[in-house]
Amino acid sequence: MGKKQVRVGLLGLGTVGGGVYKTLLKNRETILTRTGCEVEVVNILVRDREKERGFDVDAKRLTLEPENLLKDETIDIYIEVIGGIHPTKEIIEQALRSKRHVITANKELMAKHGADLLRLAQENEVHLLFEASVAGGIPVIHMLQGYLTANRVHEICGILNGTSNYILSEMSKTGKSFSEVLAEAQALGYAEADPTSDVEGFDAAYKLAILTNLAYDACVDIATIDRQGISQLTGADLALAERMGYAIKLIGNAKEQAGALQLSVRPHLLPDAHPLARVNDVFNAVTLRADVVGDLTLIGRGAGEFPTASAVIEDLTALLTQRENIRRPNWERAMNHRCTEQDAGAFYLAWSASQEQERPLCEALVGEVKRAGGHVARYESLADAERLHQAWLIGGVTEAQVNRLVENVSQIAAEHLSALVLHVDGEIEPGVEWESEASGYEKSARYA
Amino acid sequence: MGKKQVRVGLLGLGTVGGGVYKTLLKNRETILTRTGCEVEVVNILVRDREKERGFDVDAKRLTLEPENLLKDETIDIYIEVIGGIHPTKEIIEQALRSKRHVITANKELMAKHGADLLRLAQENEVHLLFEASVAGGIPVIHMLQGYLTANRVHEICGILNGTSNYILSEMSKTGKSFSEVLAEAQALGYAEADPTSDVEGFDAAYKLAILTNLAYDACVDIATIDRQGISQLTGADLALAERMGYAIKLIGNAKEQAGALQLSVRPHLLPDAHPLARVNDVFNAVTLRADVVGDLTLIGRGAGEFPTASAVIEDLTALLTQRENIRRPNWERAMNHRCTEQDAGAFYLAWSASQEQERPLCEALVGEVKRAGGHVARYESLADAERLHQAWLIGGVTEAQVNRLVENVSQIAAEHLSALVLHVDGEIEPGVEWESEASGYEKSARYA
Repeated sequence: MGKKQVRVGLLGLGTVGGGVYKTLLKNRETILTRTGCEVEVVNILVRDREKERGFDVDAKRLTLEPENLLKDETIDIYIEVIGGIHPTKEIIEQALRSKRHVITANKELMAKHGADLLRLAQENEVHLLFEASVAGGIPVIHMLQGYLTANRVHEICGILNGTSNYILSEMSKTGKSFSEVLAEAQALGYAEADPTSDVEGFDAAYKLAILTNLAYDACVDIATIDRQGISQLTGADLALAERMGYAIKLIGNAKEQAGALQLSVRPHLLPDAHPLARVNDVFNAVTLRADVVGDLTLIGRGAGEFPTASAVIEDLTALLTQRENIRRPNWERAMNHRCTEQDAGAFYLAWSASQEQERPLCEALVGEVKRAGGHVARYESLADAERLHQAWLIGGVTEAQVNRLVENVSQIAAEHLSALVLHVDGEIEPGVEWESEASGYEKSARYA
Repeated sequence: MGKKQVRVGLLGLGTVGGGVYKTLLKNRETILTRTGCEVEVVNILVRDREKERGFDVDAKRLTLEPENLLKDETIDIYIEVIGGIHPTKEIIEQALRSKRHVITANKELMAKHGADLLRLAQENEVHLLFEASVAGGIPVIHMLQGYLTANRVHEICGILNGTSNYILSEMSKTGKSFSEVLAEAQALGYAEADPTSDVEGFDAAYKLAILTNLAYDACVDIATIDRQGISQLTGADLALAERMGYAIKLIGNAKEQAGALQLSVRPHLLPDAHPLARVNDVFNAVTLRADVVGDLTLIGRGAGEFPTASAVIEDLTALLTQRENIRRPNWERAMNHRCTEQDAGAFYLAWSASQEQERPLCEALVGEVKRAGGHVARYESLADAERLHQAWLIGGVTEAQVNRLVENVSQIAAEHLSALVLHVDGEIEPGVEWESEASGYEKSARYA
């Protein structure tokens, strides 16, 4: 049977683009054997034709003009690894309108404009594939879109951003501050010069929106995602959570309840036994909870040259072998949004205070928690030269109640308390009461 | 677009068969929406028509005769969840020859006869699907057969048997003996009356063979799998490994090296950071190591009614939506087998001795290890009323050398030592030398 020639237009030759280009060369035999196709990258859009790239690429194939790729009617498939919204969105739209398939790694674009782009692809009877937009090489989009068919996914829980996961892992390992570890991450190339998207949870929110849309045939409004980044966490929080038997991870979570969606990207305390608790460094992971199979967890590298290139190239091979059977996402369902502030749960509450305030603050807090009908399951503290970092595990209250009791304690203490409130996953034993006598403080207080 | 009627013949109505039957009913709308097919189970092969099953099933659909299903030409797809080799193999062959698709959960059959059955399916232009034969609901076969196309898998590492994983987790948690935990597992229904297949690694070996065949287009001879079960492990081993910073798991491992395959199902020590180290209880997990994506780990329930039913039913939906594009496995390649006895590595060595023998045995062992060019990185011991369980981490030696030095130490000690030798994954720091002075013994010895 004859080989089929497939011509690819590559938009972008940065980290991921370079990985795609190199892999298409290196694994060409494997791709030919398994797909019957010879894939050639015929033209590449770059910003700098002279840039030193560290690998051989024919300069004649490099162009600064998107039009040079878009006008080439011999191109079958475009791979977009530039990122950003403009002019990337317009380039992709033009490609789809000209009835060519597009493979993208662009999470922000798919999160904000994916529904429209997918509709445009369908109208033009071509495919828009985007495995590489979420969790690097981990085929979670393939799981939701291609594999799970009889299963109904009712919850998604994931570590979706490698930069913030690396930072939290290092803070936990070394006890260093967020700022210190961020600077080290930037020096290593694990964090951007402007790290906001990664550390404030925007990147993870885009990815959560994409997964949620796939799982529920929905069209999520990013603004409804309860988003809290990691920049307010301190080395003390990581250490105290660990003492309590928990890891702190930036978790993207989507759950359907009573026909409405609750979506959040926030740091959570995960108990040691949680499948995501030990997913460290730049690894990502997603747990899908479905009605027949139960919990399925996938772990892998969430970013980087070759993991992300893998996702792009496996989208390509799927296009070459399964084109007619690729299920078209249907991101149409307007779903009600559900706020979780009034849900009873377990929370980690922490603040920094002067050491003399330890006992009065503990007494005030325990009193407020009891008045709210909850219970304090644990108290730990860590002192440095000047301040005391105090942390409690509180059960049987809502987040709204926790926020209120922080205000009440601030008033009692006549001191503004800048409190950190995090969800705790799993059960906190209701019978474990923390003793508020002086001996309790002496037992718990530790010195750094 | 009209619905398509699909008629299924179900062979078996035990745990998994019941799960398949119930799920096809419960999720019928989802299946119809996503596949355009109405799936009906028209006839079910059982061993006992009167048996109380705990769910409603039309008695008219139950039959004791395989022929009643096989002769029914209106059946499109057979689902085999009986297990065993005979007469299951003959039933499946007859179904394939009559040009009907077969979906099976039968690991032993696929491991021993899969190549022949797949060839028969191909000759008859139908499909034989077997996701449910390995790791329950975890779609590892789909990963290897359906998703990873440009990637070349070069290593497989997995916890493939839930019974033995449950037993090891319980031994680790409680300190109880293997026999005690096995009895509890049997009472809970997690282990069979005859547990041999699970605890001696046969079940995991079948599953490893299937995954290996898929990853390498090979046809593995089960007899070449280096197989060692968990029945020789003691509560002391689990405890001492944990002290050393390791979990003990029954690991199925396939790796290609120098064009030859090395295959094993054996208990390994996994360092705490290993992705499989904390996969506990009845959970299974597989790490695939591929050249583009790197390490991909999948974790889920490896057995049970609904997880396994999920795998069967997702094979069914794939058949209904992707029939022409399902890649046919090619289990043809005769690969050389490679023995690892001469590979340098790190090992856990343990035996039980009388307490007075502690020092002489330690000195003898350290001497033998040094003579073999290796080093002792760690020593731990656990005493009970009568004996001392001694355990070492040894690096820079081969397994053949470890076995020889055990013989030599036995001679020196004039006592037969029944030694346990396990691979240790990861590096053992070569610089960490254990001191063999008396103080070393006092530091390390612990009393149960």
